Amino acid sequence: MHERFLELIEEKKLALLKEELKEMRAADVAEAFDELDKKNSIILFRLLGKDEAAEIFSHLSTQQRMHIVDVMHENQLNEIIDELYFDDMIDFLEEMPANFVKKVLTSATEEERKLINQFLKYPENSAGSLMTIEYVDLKKEMTVKEALEHIKKTGPDKETIYTCYVLNEKRKLEGLVSLRKLVLFDDNLLISEVMNEDFIATKTLDDQEEIASIFKKYDLLTLPVVDKEDRLVGIITIDDIMDVIDQETTEDFQKMAAMEPSEEEYLHSRIFSLARRRIPWLFILMITAMFTEGIIGRFEDILTAVAVLAASIPMLMDTAGNAGSQSSTLIIRGMALGEIELEDYLKVFWREFRVSLVVGVSLGTINFFRMLFISQVGVAVAITVSITLVLTIIMAKVVGGTLPIAAKKMKLDPAIMAGPMITTIVDALALIVYFSIAIAIIGL
Amino acid sequence: MHERFLELIEEKKLALLKEELKEMRAADVAEAFDELDKKNSIILFRLLGKDEAAEIFSHLSTQQRMHIVDVMHENQLNEIIDELYFDDMIDFLEEMPANFVKKVLTSATEEERKLINQFLKYPENSAGSLMTIEYVDLKKEMTVKEALEHIKKTGPDKETIYTCYVLNEKRKLEGLVSLRKLVLFDDNLLISEVMNEDFIATKTLDDQEEIASIFKKYDLLTLPVVDKEDRLVGIITIDDIMDVIDQETTEDFQKMAAMEPSEEEYLHSRIFSLARRRIPWLFILMITAMFTEGIIGRFEDILTAVAVLAASIPMLMDTAGNAGSQSSTLIIRGMALGEIELEDYLKVFWREFRVSLVVGVSLGTINFFRMLFISQVGVAVAITVSITLVLTIIMAKVVGGTLPIAAKKMKLDPAIMAGPMITTIVDALALIVYFSIAIAIIGL
Repeated sequence: MHERFLELIEEKKLALLKEELKEMRAADVAEAFDELDKKNSIILFRLLGKDEAAEIFSHLSTQQRMHIVDVMHENQLNEIIDELYFDDMIDFLEEMPANFVKKVLTSATEEERKLINQFLKYPENSAGSLMTIEYVDLKKEMTVKEALEHIKKTGPDKETIYTCYVLNEKRKLEGLVSLRKLVLFDDNLLISEVMNEDFIATKTLDDQEEIASIFKKYDLLTLPVVDKEDRLVGIITIDDIMDVIDQETTEDFQKMAAMEPSEEEYLHSRIFSLARRRIPWLFILMITAMFTEGIIGRFEDILTAVAVLAASIPMLMDTAGNAGSQSSTLIIRGMALGEIELEDYLKVFWREFRVSLVVGVSLGTINFFRMLFISQVGVAVAITVSITLVLTIIMAKVVGGTLPIAAKKMKLDPAIMAGPMITTIVDALALIVYFSIAIAIIGL
Repeated sequence: MHERFLELIEEKKLALLKEELKEMRAADVAEAFDELDKKNSIILFRLLGKDEAAEIFSHLSTQQRMHIVDVMHENQLNEIIDELYFDDMIDFLEEMPANFVKKVLTSATEEERKLINQFLKYPENSAGSLMTIEYVDLKKEMTVKEALEHIKKTGPDKETIYTCYVLNEKRKLEGLVSLRKLVLFDDNLLISEVMNEDFIATKTLDDQEEIASIFKKYDLLTLPVVDKEDRLVGIITIDDIMDVIDQETTEDFQKMAAMEPSEEEYLHSRIFSLARRRIPWLFILMITAMFTEGIIGRFEDILTAVAVLAASIPMLMDTAGNAGSQSSTLIIRGMALGEIELEDYLKVFWREFRVSLVVGVSLGTINFFRMLFISQVGVAVAITVSITLVLTIIMAKVVGGTLPIAAKKMKLDPAIMAGPMITTIVDALALIVYFSIAIAIIGL
């Protein structure tokens, strides 16, 4: 799509481009922006109508927004900001430099200014930072018919009208009514008769990950956010929750691969920023792996005496690491989805022990015959390596299965107890077992 | 919650339990079922009203459903099946044994039977297997007012009424109208004037992962599914898409940790089924890791001559594996989210090369001084290990970053080119580099 844009820009057919842009979906145009350089994306953005510009703007990456902010006139920008939904505007202001935010605040009314300041203060991953204020409020004395008329009047600017919020004069949330009910039920019923008083609400400081679980569990489209006095302060809509789910999953992937999490897209990150997020854990794991140096050093005699033992070290370590990663990954994911809880500790231990027995004995047996007949080492060495393999797999799976739960128990993120960390821990154990068995079986 | 249920069951306070169940949300009751044994879950299920029973049933795990099916009378079951939304019923029938499905089909009308058979044939992860037939259809000749009356009449049984589907006499999909528009727009407008003809639709055989991306990109709540003649056959709703996203992510996690993916919950899987999904990849990786045996065997002389070299092998291998996993994880996730495409191959290569240079030189330098001053090995060994570390990190990151893209190019799932596979490949490379540098620097 961006090729077509570039073509039209180069051929100076801007009027035609403007027409084509009108026909397109905002999400598609925004995607094309990602492929354009600064100059062309500004040309393109200037061709957009006010409404389109605002909608596309809310889909753009931070970098692209910066380009546009850099060159647009203040009043053009204010026009776009006015068109944005409140939650999109707050997201945008959060990523802008302080003096830009100041300018926006200056041109806002007193009431808007208070509201913007309040929203900018909510911590990043909280309900407060996700919510919007564009909801429909009803009173419980209204009839269904009056409510529908009220929606007709106030609805056009709201982010959603599918759930309406029944507030008392102090803005305390008394109930929810879905538009479904309003349309299906009798016109003369009172809102107090049709509203759902047994609703779920969240608080401004609740964590977005928990909120996403609530959406999934109860199949919600929106969720009200209330303050300490149960007054409605905003609503969260499912489109923002979809983004939260992707973002939280990406964070888990990054942590599990021993990186500092980041919301930046890979292709739009700076090289040093990518490197900076990878070095700390690599460094910690490197230092930890050095304990294995000490272990090998302690058993140097047997390694010099039976040099063939060294050859199996990588295979033992890799298999242990892989076996442990399998277990830790399943448990971390199970905890993220709420399928595995802290109190399942013993269940997981017992399951992993039995699974590892099956896996360990299978692989150990195969390895024994492989070493004997294909690698043609002595029986003593084949037995040493194979028994180590079985024991290592058992250790790896039990450690891999239980450490993530232990981490959570200690209020740490279970995701750090994934492959890399488990591998490093299990490697050291594997080597100790290996050399101890070697000494016992082969002797010195 | 299940403790409360057990308490009431034990004290035989079933009437009270029945009352309490009525007040509770279906998703909460379903969650409690997971903690009950077969006997108690059946007692509890029998206490539910018909509507509640159906709603809770659609939330239960396969295992729990089996328990209930085992003991319920045929006509009780049929009642529940009748109450289920069509997509939930198909999901349920898909997991039941063939003779059970046959019984259900016998008691269905001819028309229902045809429809059920058609839906059971859609492949597992296709649009067809996700969709429901409970949608509202409108005609374009209707006015907004007539449409709202039509919705009032037919809406109560529909899974959603927030998007309505405009069909011609051949059931070809001509446009979509949101309930938002119907409520906000003038009563006398024609549907043909308010409907959106530029809608997105999917085909019955489209893959669920692509469909999830469409929902996310365009912030949809529902998506129509059409056949080859553009006739509407069903709709997909966002609650099912939320499940798809979780399921696809879990599959990625499992594949990336070298397991065969499965939809079974960890705590509800059989031990042998867990083991069976872990052994194949562990076996393949174990066999691949054995190449390292050959490599070490070839360089046994230098290892015997400079025994201290063996001590650093685990640290080098672990760091290489971790560095490679970081890169492959970022790229696999980026591809899953559509942020990285096949044509970004060279960009990724060049980025990983630069990042790895920064990371490698940082860690290599630290390691050099650490070995010299803390481990107190000779300068030649410290240089050998540190240069290997730098080169290995560079190789690991370039291999880890590009192999997932290469896998996708070859129509394989990029997720198999994650930590375990990358580690195994990079280990062999690391050892070759290590011994080659050792020979060059220390000599023999």
